Amino acid sequence: METLGYHIIAELWDCDHDKLNDLQLIEETFAHAALNAGAEIREVIFHPFDPQGVSGAVIIAESHLTIHSFPEHGYASVDVYTCGDSINPKDAALMIAKALDAKTMHSVEIPRGLGELKMKNPTTKSPL
Amino acid sequence: METLGYHIIAELWDCDHDKLNDLQLIEETFAHAALNAGAEIREVIFHPFDPQGVSGAVIIAESHLTIHSFPEHGYASVDVYTCGDSINPKDAALMIAKALDAKTMHSVEIPRGLGELKMKNPTTKSPL
Repeated sequence: METLGYHIIAELWDCDHDKLNDLQLIEETFAHAALNAGAEIREVIFHPFDPQGVSGAVIIAESHLTIHSFPEHGYASVDVYTCGDSINPKDAALMIAKALDAKTMHSVEIPRGLGELKMKNPTTKSPL
Repeated sequence: METLGYHIIAELWDCDHDKLNDLQLIEETFAHAALNAGAEIREVIFHPFDPQGVSGAVIIAESHLTIHSFPEHGYASVDVYTCGDSINPKDAALMIAKALDAKTMHSVEIPRGLGELKMKNPTTKSPL
């Protein structure tokens, strides 16, 4: 497999409080986003925090998706990293943002596996 | 919990081929790096790929660590993302790089949970 990959780092703000605390919804959203993008899921872990918040990861054959949610701040940090060029991680990130009712998404793309690291295509979408 | 976090993105090159394929060594290295940094481990998943390579994630109370290894290229992509300011993700990334015998590490720091995304402190260490 080639080392080249694309890593989308997304900051989701003004999300729905209850959705950020809904482990089942988040797990289903991530699985759906991965499969919809054409990824092959290998491992899934999501962990609820007390008193609130969810963290988790989906390991795909093409790298990973992760989330850390902060319901009290309406915030979720989301990463979608895919290797190869058959999958579009931006679409998966946008699908996740919409499922969590994010009002604003800041995102950047970081090519991986090339050498020195550079940010590409910084984007702010508000409203989504 | 505050949203502020620090995400280290690290590209490890010229690593030891066999170590990049050693699931047990990688899992132990990641657990050790997380605990040594003062993180609290919540979930651990590592997945071997056929014919080679390992992907995995450690979910910590303070966010996550991930790896995707490409033994055939001597390359591993590593992320260490920690919330709060009690943990130094750079130390954990460097510990992982050394455990995999990386000769070169490109890394950047991305503050998370603030708003727009910016890269900080791009660094190339060679040799480590």
